[in-house]
Amino acid sequence: MSERVTPQLHKGLRDLLPEEMIARQRMIADMSAVCERFGFVPLATPAIERMDVLTGSDAGDEAAGSIFRVDAPEDDVLGLRFDLTVPLARVVAQYQDLSRPFRRYQTAPVWRADKPDMNRGRFREFTQFDIDAVGVPSESADVEIMAVGCELLGALGLADAGGFTLRFSSRRILDLLLPLAGIDRSRGRDVFRVLDKLDKIGPEKVRLELTRGYTDDSGDRIEGLGFESAQVDQIERFLAIKDDTRAGVLSKLRELMSPIQGASDEIDSVGRISEHLAEIGYDESRVVLDLSIARGLAYYTGPVFEAVLNDAPQFGSVFGGGRYDGLVQRFLGERIPAVGASVGVDRLLSALVHLGKVELRSSTARVLVTTMDKTLESDYLDIAFELRRAGIATELFLGAQKFRKQLSQADKKGYDLAVLMGSNEKEQGVVTVKDLIRGRATAEDVEREAWLRDRPAQVEVPRAELVRTVKRMLGDGAPR
Amino acid sequence: MSERVTPQLHKGLRDLLPEEMIARQRMIADMSAVCERFGFVPLATPAIERMDVLTGSDAGDEAAGSIFRVDAPEDDVLGLRFDLTVPLARVVAQYQDLSRPFRRYQTAPVWRADKPDMNRGRFREFTQFDIDAVGVPSESADVEIMAVGCELLGALGLADAGGFTLRFSSRRILDLLLPLAGIDRSRGRDVFRVLDKLDKIGPEKVRLELTRGYTDDSGDRIEGLGFESAQVDQIERFLAIKDDTRAGVLSKLRELMSPIQGASDEIDSVGRISEHLAEIGYDESRVVLDLSIARGLAYYTGPVFEAVLNDAPQFGSVFGGGRYDGLVQRFLGERIPAVGASVGVDRLLSALVHLGKVELRSSTARVLVTTMDKTLESDYLDIAFELRRAGIATELFLGAQKFRKQLSQADKKGYDLAVLMGSNEKEQGVVTVKDLIRGRATAEDVEREAWLRDRPAQVEVPRAELVRTVKRMLGDGAPR
Repeated sequence: MSERVTPQLHKGLRDLLPEEMIARQRMIADMSAVCERFGFVPLATPAIERMDVLTGSDAGDEAAGSIFRVDAPEDDVLGLRFDLTVPLARVVAQYQDLSRPFRRYQTAPVWRADKPDMNRGRFREFTQFDIDAVGVPSESADVEIMAVGCELLGALGLADAGGFTLRFSSRRILDLLLPLAGIDRSRGRDVFRVLDKLDKIGPEKVRLELTRGYTDDSGDRIEGLGFESAQVDQIERFLAIKDDTRAGVLSKLRELMSPIQGASDEIDSVGRISEHLAEIGYDESRVVLDLSIARGLAYYTGPVFEAVLNDAPQFGSVFGGGRYDGLVQRFLGERIPAVGASVGVDRLLSALVHLGKVELRSSTARVLVTTMDKTLESDYLDIAFELRRAGIATELFLGAQKFRKQLSQADKKGYDLAVLMGSNEKEQGVVTVKDLIRGRATAEDVEREAWLRDRPAQVEVPRAELVRTVKRMLGDGAPR
Repeated sequence: MSERVTPQLHKGLRDLLPEEMIARQRMIADMSAVCERFGFVPLATPAIERMDVLTGSDAGDEAAGSIFRVDAPEDDVLGLRFDLTVPLARVVAQYQDLSRPFRRYQTAPVWRADKPDMNRGRFREFTQFDIDAVGVPSESADVEIMAVGCELLGALGLADAGGFTLRFSSRRILDLLLPLAGIDRSRGRDVFRVLDKLDKIGPEKVRLELTRGYTDDSGDRIEGLGFESAQVDQIERFLAIKDDTRAGVLSKLRELMSPIQGASDEIDSVGRISEHLAEIGYDESRVVLDLSIARGLAYYTGPVFEAVLNDAPQFGSVFGGGRYDGLVQRFLGERIPAVGASVGVDRLLSALVHLGKVELRSSTARVLVTTMDKTLESDYLDIAFELRRAGIATELFLGAQKFRKQLSQADKKGYDLAVLMGSNEKEQGVVTVKDLIRGRATAEDVEREAWLRDRPAQVEVPRAELVRTVKRMLGDGAPR
């Protein structure tokens, strides 16, 4: 065998150990169930795409520098996908018999060869959960995607007061800001990129970046876009529009935008979206019209939105998206209307843990069958299989550790019960069930929790009574 | 926007469209539930590993030529994982505080830059479902891994008569074959590689490859290993050992191996595994001791096994695995006993479809809310959300297609019901529910299936009765 190899990962990559994976799988299953109830169907695409598919779109141009290249045995230039939207556009163009509207959800890893920052949750491989509808021109579609995002958060226990706020606006309204401020359309992308940083860098730095630039905290020079002070005043006037109601925002917006041709149609469209949202129960307590929402990506063409958790705003936007009607065009030559949302799986899970909505556990089983006597291996297998076949998640201890160590491991992993049988018990036809919940309880726990008081630390029962006893003891506890 | 790009994938890669993904996700969920009932916990590792981690083991040497290389921004040499076992070995070595035994399952794509053959199911990206226990020296562990595989197949509806056969043997018994045939231990790997092809190429070609070689059907020269005829006779005598019972095989084996030192201990060990299997209900009707099982991979050190579906043997082995006690050694310097199994997700799903155990559907929703009148958008949203919130999987039609087209799409996708409301119905406060199951039924279907006969083609009900009506109509049908 060759020399010792250090077991390690490349920078920016990480393993998801069981504690995190158990919670994550449950979260993704809950989210998938919501999507399926909305009639979205699952799709999977390969991690490797052709480089010409990945680059060349607006999204691809932005990401091109951070695509991991993959060497093919043939001459093709390949890369790892950096998002799930570009592969979706390829799929829609490639399978002409896929009936549209095509509504899919997909959860999968994506890769970016950026500068990672593990402490701040920036990894080179991370998981996205995307929901998109393609071939959908209507305002109902915009509403539906925003609502499915809200329902996802609801399914994760975040719908209560203090839950989340979805903020939305429209790129088409933002586009009207350009003539209002006397800015040429061609510079729109640059302006919106700066506005998207409002939450992160604050209004003063946004103003500086729009005008003469500034030097940031680390001494780097941020170039300004060179606009006039009066132009930025108009932008700020637009961004300052606030009201307790969505109708109030729209009415102030109508006033400000009155000199701009075509503004009224776009504002009416946002108004209809607002009404549809109200119809299905999403009033201003949940969904806010916020004109400062720009979204960084260049490909959006209509409504844009993002959601933050009210009690955990430090995690940033947990889902966001918008309408993008141009993304399939470079494959098909025709514009296909589409709208989608992306959930940041990693940050949403971190936020759920932070809010105590998810309990981290490193085990899925609740019962450990201990193995103290090698001559009883068949009996232990028999016990474990009987419990499992009765639907009880059970681990059979398969290591070489001594009995004490087995028990302390089970305790540490949060198992509820341990089953014990030595040769004496075998002879007498009995088994012992040890109550680890009771064992873990402190005097204060017992004082506080009435149901703990009556639990014996362990019971000895006839072998034939085992399944019934275990079921009763698991059922007796506090709800989990 | 840049020039038109052809929407296509690199060779050997493929998309999993909804019809396949819906069935696959259900299959994986069922398999995961079994693993969790056995106390296995989920793990995820990144797709990208360092090349020194991937190569260098026996498994890595075999796969080295087919690793997709990935370019890092830094100097590291990276590649895409080619299996899930090597990353598991890294994880076990890297996280010293991960308590052992460590029992994990993982389902994820792996990549091999081999010559693909899409028609025969050989892809460059494919999904594995692996179950492993690390830190487990006992025969119970071997039994448990074989049994979890069997229970997986059971959960997928394959446990009935005509279900599957698990064949097992042990590398340590095979190792005894070498002194029996007078073959040096150092040539064991070559011999087993040839024996592993027995099912594929048949006994004559195996004999030729063990002796003087041959020219295959496509004219390629297959080199022989150069053994004597008498040596191959011994091998064939060994492979010819067959009996209706596992005990019978063991007794014949004992006789043949009587001259070989140490044989008796190894045969006893296999005997105990056989007894444990019987104890938990896996007798010879399911699990067969078959001395011809070699398994290709070099890293196995103990029991090896593989399962085929009795009514679909053409799909080959649907899961297989064995004990590998040396794989963590090159990271840690110490041997860690481990045993694992891998399920071929793609071929198992194909086999399930072939056997009619899985129904392919391209939708998850059962009800389509049609949209015929643009002025009623809010009403349609309202109807769709009411149904969804009542737990009924519902698609709201968001495309621009005409009403007739909406209905025919719903029919083609296998929806059960369609909800219709025009302005007349709106005025009268009613909705129409169209029964697509009844609509699809032929005269013969109706003749044959009594429950179809009494279903009206459509009903008109008060708007407030909609949810109740839909629930009743969905519940009325044939069981799905």
